[in-house]
Parts: sequence; C-alpha cells; structure tokens
Amino acid sequence: MRVLGIDCGTERTGYGVIDSDGRAHQMVAAGVIRTLANSKLEHRLREISCQLRDVIGRYSPGEAAVEEVFFATNVRTALKLAHVRGVALLAISEAGLDLGEYSPLEVKSSVVGYGRAGKNQVQLMVRSLLRLSGGSDPKDSPTASEDACDALAVAICHATHSATRRRVAKA
Amino acid sequence: MRVLGIDCGTERTGYGVIDSDGRAHQMVAAGVIRTLANSKLEHRLREISCQLRDVIGRYSPGEAAVEEVFFATNVRTALKLAHVRGVALLAISEAGLDLGEYSPLEVKSSVVGYGRAGKNQVQLMVRSLLRLSGGSDPKDSPTASEDACDALAVAICHATHSATRRRVAKA
Repeated sequence: MRVLGIDCGTERTGYGVIDSDGRAHQMVAAGVIRTLANSKLEHRLREISCQLRDVIGRYSPGEAAVEEVFFATNVRTALKLAHVRGVALLAISEAGLDLGEYSPLEVKSSVVGYGRAGKNQVQLMVRSLLRLSGGSDPKDSPTASEDACDALAVAICHATHSATRRRVAKA
Repeated sequence: MRVLGIDCGTERTGYGVIDSDGRAHQMVAAGVIRTLANSKLEHRLREISCQLRDVIGRYSPGEAAVEEVFFATNVRTALKLAHVRGVALLAISEAGLDLGEYSPLEVKSSVVGYGRAGKNQVQLMVRSLLRLSGGSDPKDSPTASEDACDALAVAICHATHSATRRRVAKA
C-alpha cells in the first residue's frame, strides 16, 4: 500500500509518502509545505491545499493518515491547526483516499514502541525504519525536518495498523 | 457591494448573499447546507466545500464575511467548527474574495444595536432590515432557518463595517 502522512501546521505542514506491506516500509517522498510568515490564514490555507493536492496528484497514494487534533498546549494554536486540518481532510476526501486518524501516543507507540518517546527518538526510528543512511548529510535529507519526519511517522503508524486490521479481518 | 455571509457548522452551514450600499440591504439568496448526520467529518467537509463553491459561482459575491471562532461552550465542538471554517476560508480565498471576520458581539451590535441580543431578536432584525414580509409563510422562507439568518446577519454586519471604513478612508 502507498500511504500519505500529513503533519498539519499553519506555518509548516509536513508530508511523507511511503510504500509499505505493513512490516517493511520505503520512503517515496517527504517534504514540508511552508507558508509566508505574515500571510493571512485564508491565504495560507490556499497554499497548503494547493500543494497537498499537488503531492496527492504526483504520488497517487491510496490511503492517508493524520494525527488527531489535541490541545495540550494552547487553545488558540489548536483552533488554527484545526483550520489547516480541515483543509487537509478536504484534500484527502476529494481524492477519495481512505483516512486513518491516530493520537500522538499511538504514533509514537507504533514507531518507537513507547508512547512518551521524544522528538529525537521518533526521528531516529523513522530514519531507521525507512533504512535511510544517517551518514549522508542529514541536513539535505527530507527527514532532516521534524515536520516531514512526523508526517512519515504517522504514515508508518497507519501502514502498520492497516496491515494488522487486514490480517485480523482475514483470520 | 455583494456580500456572502457564512455561518459555519458541521451539521448545518448557513449562507446568505446580500446586495448593499452599507445602509440599505437586499437579500439575493440564503439557505442552509446540510450534511448527513452519520457521515464522517472529511465527507462533510467535501459536501460543504462543494456547495459553498457552487453558491460563490452562482451569485458572484465580491466580499465575504464569517464569524470569528470562539469556544464559549465546548472545546471539542469549537475544534470541529474550526475544520469547517478552514474549508470555508479556503473557498473564499480560492475565489479571491475580500474577507471580513467579526465576533458574535460585533454582529449582534451591528444588526440589533445590542451585543447581547437573543437569537430571536437577531432573526427579527434581519427580516426587518432586508424588508422581508413577516406575513408570508415564514417556514418556507430562507430566513426561517436560524443558520441562514445568522449568515445574513454577518453579511449585513460586514456591509455596514465595510461602507463605514470606505467613508472614513475617503474623508
């Protein structure tokens, strides 16, 4: 299966596309959609929507995954994030992709095996699971960005869960 | 000016289009976009997006207005609403419309002259300002719906504010 993971944010939205059989995963693409710092929210949403549609059109994923919205830090930030998430869900629905939603705890458990794992641990495990060499300049790598890495992590989480669900359904 | 007002909601999104010179307002269209009760959020967002684009294409407003998101009642509800709002702002931005955002207090002050006005007062004043006869069967009227009425109210609020801003800029 080919899975698109999205890590929503008003300033930076990460995306990651992987091919997976539920156990072995391979990165197809990853990157970050950046919006202009002083730009109005509605213009940022248009930019994010436009680029997400472009990613979907270019890599043709069959499924998509996003993190559930939560508001541990700041309600104002969570509300802004929910606007971006709305636009991401719209792009996913318009493309007819199956959608999986996971809590940050589920993503970390799935990727690191530990729900309270730190950002660094997630990044390391994503690179390891996708067999990306740590030796090549990581600054030039798409996974150097925390946002792209989080997007790949949610894609890996979905691939694992999705494969398990299928095995259970078969059995 | 022709203004589109939108009252966002996951189950019912109201819209109202008015022509206005800032003092006298005339209703062009109003209605409610309903989504299936058991439908997933991403499918609701697609339905809302599709119908909002249709309204914009049909009536060609030059400006749009929405209420600011607030979370007086329930954070979960506010977060869902923000998803819909994101999709509405996207449609507005994609159509190149100028956007005005107003607090519920500003809308009520502008339409009723009193920021703490009740739902009924807003509905009555909207009907009066748009010179819609109360005698004809109000159940068949687009303004019979609270959501359509709220959308017309935010459109009237924007038209009034916008005209004032222009007069101030001229002076």
